[in-house]
Amino acid sequence: MIMRLLDEARAAKDASRKLAAASISVRNGALAAIADSLSADSESIFAANRLDLADASSLPEPLVKRLRYDEHKLRESIDELRALAALPDPLGRTLESTLLAEGLELYRVSCPLGVIGMIFESRPDALVQIAALCLKTGNAVMLKGGSEARRTNRALFDALIRAVPEPGGWCALLESRQDVNAMLGLDEYIDLLIPRGGGGFVKYIMDNTRIPVMGHAEGLCHVYVDKDADPDMAARVVRDSKMQYPAVCNAAETLLVHEAAAKSVLPAIRAALPDCEFRDDGWDTEYLDRIISVRIVPSLDEAIAHINKYGSGHTDAIVTPSAQAAARFMNEVDGADVFWNASTRFSDGYRFGLGAEVGVSTGKLHARGPVGMEGLTTYKYKLIGRGDTVGAFADGSRKFIHEPLNRDCPL
Amino acid sequence: MIMRLLDEARAAKDASRKLAAASISVRNGALAAIADSLSADSESIFAANRLDLADASSLPEPLVKRLRYDEHKLRESIDELRALAALPDPLGRTLESTLLAEGLELYRVSCPLGVIGMIFESRPDALVQIAALCLKTGNAVMLKGGSEARRTNRALFDALIRAVPEPGGWCALLESRQDVNAMLGLDEYIDLLIPRGGGGFVKYIMDNTRIPVMGHAEGLCHVYVDKDADPDMAARVVRDSKMQYPAVCNAAETLLVHEAAAKSVLPAIRAALPDCEFRDDGWDTEYLDRIISVRIVPSLDEAIAHINKYGSGHTDAIVTPSAQAAARFMNEVDGADVFWNASTRFSDGYRFGLGAEVGVSTGKLHARGPVGMEGLTTYKYKLIGRGDTVGAFADGSRKFIHEPLNRDCPL
Repeated sequence: MIMRLLDEARAAKDASRKLAAASISVRNGALAAIADSLSADSESIFAANRLDLADASSLPEPLVKRLRYDEHKLRESIDELRALAALPDPLGRTLESTLLAEGLELYRVSCPLGVIGMIFESRPDALVQIAALCLKTGNAVMLKGGSEARRTNRALFDALIRAVPEPGGWCALLESRQDVNAMLGLDEYIDLLIPRGGGGFVKYIMDNTRIPVMGHAEGLCHVYVDKDADPDMAARVVRDSKMQYPAVCNAAETLLVHEAAAKSVLPAIRAALPDCEFRDDGWDTEYLDRIISVRIVPSLDEAIAHINKYGSGHTDAIVTPSAQAAARFMNEVDGADVFWNASTRFSDGYRFGLGAEVGVSTGKLHARGPVGMEGLTTYKYKLIGRGDTVGAFADGSRKFIHEPLNRDCPL
Repeated sequence: MIMRLLDEARAAKDASRKLAAASISVRNGALAAIADSLSADSESIFAANRLDLADASSLPEPLVKRLRYDEHKLRESIDELRALAALPDPLGRTLESTLLAEGLELYRVSCPLGVIGMIFESRPDALVQIAALCLKTGNAVMLKGGSEARRTNRALFDALIRAVPEPGGWCALLESRQDVNAMLGLDEYIDLLIPRGGGGFVKYIMDNTRIPVMGHAEGLCHVYVDKDADPDMAARVVRDSKMQYPAVCNAAETLLVHEAAAKSVLPAIRAALPDCEFRDDGWDTEYLDRIISVRIVPSLDEAIAHINKYGSGHTDAIVTPSAQAAARFMNEVDGADVFWNASTRFSDGYRFGLGAEVGVSTGKLHARGPVGMEGLTTYKYKLIGRGDTVGAFADGSRKFIHEPLNRDCPL
């Protein structure tokens, strides 16, 4: 274990307890201070980014684009910070309240997870976004960004810490690959790891840590066109699902068509996607490109079975006029997002109205699908009594009531 | 990999999809059929249990007691089955509904996890209870019970399968230690593992599987008596927390007393617990016995820091007349259950009114504290549109609304 990292983890745990007790006005004030600090430090941030970009000139164009942090990206970061500050407090929400017995009140109340470990790709704007989400939700955070963005990340981190010096240690920046491996052993301090990256990377993290992982794995999404589907609607939904942005996880990779609809629907779809390659196999391939696998299926049952076999449980859509077929599809497909007559591309925290997106989870535990701030919170039970004992219930002198209180926790 | 086990896991996955689509009347009917089948098979179950008990005669008395499955235990199992059937359906509940845009409706709806792997101790009644909870929540289940109860488990399992033959494979019984190790590799099929047992066992499971684990680890619970606490109330809460049932995880192990209260409160507490040993150290020991560690602390802050350092995040109580002190304690102690003027022994699914208890989780992800049926469910997002595309929003021809719908999902 790297001693510095252990110290940082301990400091993060201590800071997380202070953040958990900080009021929403303190947390929102911190977000505003970061926005101001980014503006004030913009020149040194841009200068750091120019150095990172100079070193990255041999990288492919899309990577260079992601690495860039300029006036435009700064403006976006600042807008996001202000939008986040305007969202309601995710903490201290009473999720449930029960009168256990006369004078004995139980409340389930949302609270922070503690310390979040985040490993993210080479987009420096992600650093600001993630740190801000953690602040809003009362969590401390340990961040490891892509090494290509090292100087930009450091400049952004410095601006953050200058803006929000207290509680000390609330945000830590890790800079080496060894730090990542060491972080995986910090299960005593880190409550949740969020790795962003390819499926292999996420699996590596899961295999090498006892810390719970919220991972964002593959998106092998399907559009199934049922027998009586309107060809125009089918073509519109397939085109948007595949072509609106082919390189992302919620783009469709496989088209399933009911055999009774194939003749009427397939020509319309092919005509609507002239720039897409159609293949008759590859049902387990995530192309992330202008390629789609096609399969004709004999029934809705076969379509559901195909998706449950080859899909990744991310997002799957059915195009059909039948509410009954839609209900079966949505109940029997085992996935985070099941859509009726809508493009798979809607699967996204912003479009879902979650306010801010932490990531997309293909796991089923804790948070599933697009994850908002709720994914960075947990809850605790608060019980308020008057010196109550279990003995009084065990000997029969008192009885449980178990009625909903429908009231916010007073503490 | 044991091929039989792999076949059982595949069958369980298939069965889970059928259970997810089964109506609540079908699932409740299955619970009633199990109750009838247990009655009908009672003689062969008792006979199997007598053989298990005969082999277990050298075990300590408490273990033998847990192993016993007689008329009385059968009656309890049947009562639990009927009570479970009477509870509301945990599936298909609309947890959130949002109008994304005109004609585009998003619903978050509860659904089963899929396949649950449960490893439990030598209480045969747990087999019935767990299988029933999984049926009610639409999950398939793979069960591994204690080897001492092997014959009883098999007889109970046979009665279950005879009562509920369909969907085939919904419940599997594992009988060897190798099966447990093989089960840890079935992350493609099993969605959640629930090991019941000691902390070391739970850690072993966590270290050797990629499947999410809901574990029930130690309970190092505290009672903190603040400076102006009423001595009688303090003595009552400490007595109940420590002595009402010392062998369980929600019993108190450490008593913290504010130094200003020590003189008035400690004599009252000692007088109320004449049969308990008081120790000045051992703050990280879970005694599960009539022993309690005591520490005098100079402040509420020190009490909170002590609990966050030595506690297990299970259940901690404060005795104080001050709402302000209680609020600080409840917000700053990092634990599942934080109580004001109530015994730690209330931390329990039945007492919390959860209807049925799956276990107590000391993890923070997914479910925390006493876990009811909700812990065996997840949710999916159902989006209902009319052929909507993201492209229309990207080109500005449509705008998101993001308004709550306050309506149940129609499908």
